[in-house]
Amino acid sequence: MSGKEVQLVVVGSIGIDTIETPVERRESILGGSASYACATSAMYSHVGMVGVVGADFPEAYENLYRHFNIDLAGLQKKEGETFRWSGVYKENMDDRDTLSTELNVLAEFAPRLPDRYRKAPFLFLANIGPDLQQEVLDQMEQPKFVAMDTMDLWINIQRDALVKVIGQVDLLTLNESEARRLSGEHFLPIAAERLLAMGPRYVLIKKGEHGSMLFSQDDIFVLPAFPLNNVQDPTGAGDAFAGGFMGSLAALGEVNEDTIRTAMVYGSVVASFAVEAFSLERLKTLTRADIETRANLFRDMMRIPGALVPA
Amino acid sequence: MSGKEVQLVVVGSIGIDTIETPVERRESILGGSASYACATSAMYSHVGMVGVVGADFPEAYENLYRHFNIDLAGLQKKEGETFRWSGVYKENMDDRDTLSTELNVLAEFAPRLPDRYRKAPFLFLANIGPDLQQEVLDQMEQPKFVAMDTMDLWINIQRDALVKVIGQVDLLTLNESEARRLSGEHFLPIAAERLLAMGPRYVLIKKGEHGSMLFSQDDIFVLPAFPLNNVQDPTGAGDAFAGGFMGSLAALGEVNEDTIRTAMVYGSVVASFAVEAFSLERLKTLTRADIETRANLFRDMMRIPGALVPA
Repeated sequence: MSGKEVQLVVVGSIGIDTIETPVERRESILGGSASYACATSAMYSHVGMVGVVGADFPEAYENLYRHFNIDLAGLQKKEGETFRWSGVYKENMDDRDTLSTELNVLAEFAPRLPDRYRKAPFLFLANIGPDLQQEVLDQMEQPKFVAMDTMDLWINIQRDALVKVIGQVDLLTLNESEARRLSGEHFLPIAAERLLAMGPRYVLIKKGEHGSMLFSQDDIFVLPAFPLNNVQDPTGAGDAFAGGFMGSLAALGEVNEDTIRTAMVYGSVVASFAVEAFSLERLKTLTRADIETRANLFRDMMRIPGALVPA
Repeated sequence: MSGKEVQLVVVGSIGIDTIETPVERRESILGGSASYACATSAMYSHVGMVGVVGADFPEAYENLYRHFNIDLAGLQKKEGETFRWSGVYKENMDDRDTLSTELNVLAEFAPRLPDRYRKAPFLFLANIGPDLQQEVLDQMEQPKFVAMDTMDLWINIQRDALVKVIGQVDLLTLNESEARRLSGEHFLPIAAERLLAMGPRYVLIKKGEHGSMLFSQDDIFVLPAFPLNNVQDPTGAGDAFAGGFMGSLAALGEVNEDTIRTAMVYGSVVASFAVEAFSLERLKTLTRADIETRANLFRDMMRIPGALVPA
């Protein structure tokens, strides 16, 4: 695989998570934005991962990345411990409290892209510090389409660096509360207008169980979420959404209103699977056929009949 | 108009509201579930209102009902004061605190349907006590389709009477938190299953700015909300949704999966207008053409392309 052309480069965090949801508590499971985004995008495209782990990173987790056919040439292994995060979800699974964050090897991370990665047409800067996102972006030759994610932490403590990266990407994705915080606006169409003014052609707002919205200068796309009756762990849902989105978009090749909408449907469906189990457990056995089946069901659920009320 | 055949009967509360939103505070404005549901449904069907007001009810408000072409044969005027409600919305406009509720003439309300109303094919039991909903239902001859709304108050204090009415209707509509409370289930597909088991063929869950969902034994329909950049007052949004839904459904005549989905699009669009101003102020000048224009825009925003990711 190592010689295969990389269609999509993904940089993000790789972490060992300890998570408590109303359902269960799980210790030292594989997490991080790059893990979720690569596992999902690699179902559609040849994906090159950029990230760092410590000497303690379990071989089983590295093998799991291989199981997903993720290209690991850009994965660094350093002395020290892997990034660790632990958190507790509240009853509604929407809010969570972070109990601890240990940056460990992530603190000294200096991303270095293998030559093979640099020519990739698609780049996804998953959630990680904006300085690291910038370093990766700078090493790419001329990507056709760059998307980035972020989180409230960077909005709060590295706003300037963040805004600088936003000015260089094609698509910014963030969740509802982050969009409001970064723009200072409550109503999402106005928030999106402010964010578009920072540079990106598209702003993709993720609303979790309430769906997602895509804004561009001329268009709005509103997509509900696939209704679920089982959520074990919402961690990584947004990363899985973005991964499914970028992986399928890279596979489609062209970027236009139609392919972006199609990719959002896939991102949404992939995320709906991801939350049905902890870590990458559900994704591990997920097939493209499973995704297609649920995507078709989802399209039926969203079908708007042509019938009009007589005038 | 008084001799015209009634297509849809609506019973609900009629109130004088004092409301504070983050935008503004307004005193003694026209409110109540029947006001919003009749004003919106009457844009599509000939609607007979069932309700009660006190001697203090301003003539201007009664004239406003006439402006909407609402049939007022079932509107009672009693000695005493009109029902009054006052509340304050929080910054996010989602949560509100009730400051005071004065039942006044509503406490002794004994709905009595004009003969003309009893043969109507469509009935909407808007939010009001379940005993009153039952009294109205009992006076109808053989409605083809009955929908009902409710609120957390009745779930908390008159659950048995409420469940009894639910067992006799075709469609139950409520908001997300009420669906969870009444069913005891967090995940909406499971909550809906429990509610369907109480008798109705359809359960329509309203999620405000996050859209709505329709559940039946065989189908799920998920609909986002029209994205707004101006909300003055969310009061009555659910009643306006239900009114637009029932009015357009009655105009369509047939009840099936397609007409219900179409009616939900209209209900959603009508509600999106209703919240742009206090009371019935935006609805007062709203035309069917305005609704059609926004409905078309909304359909474009929800369009799912046929494009598939190559296997």
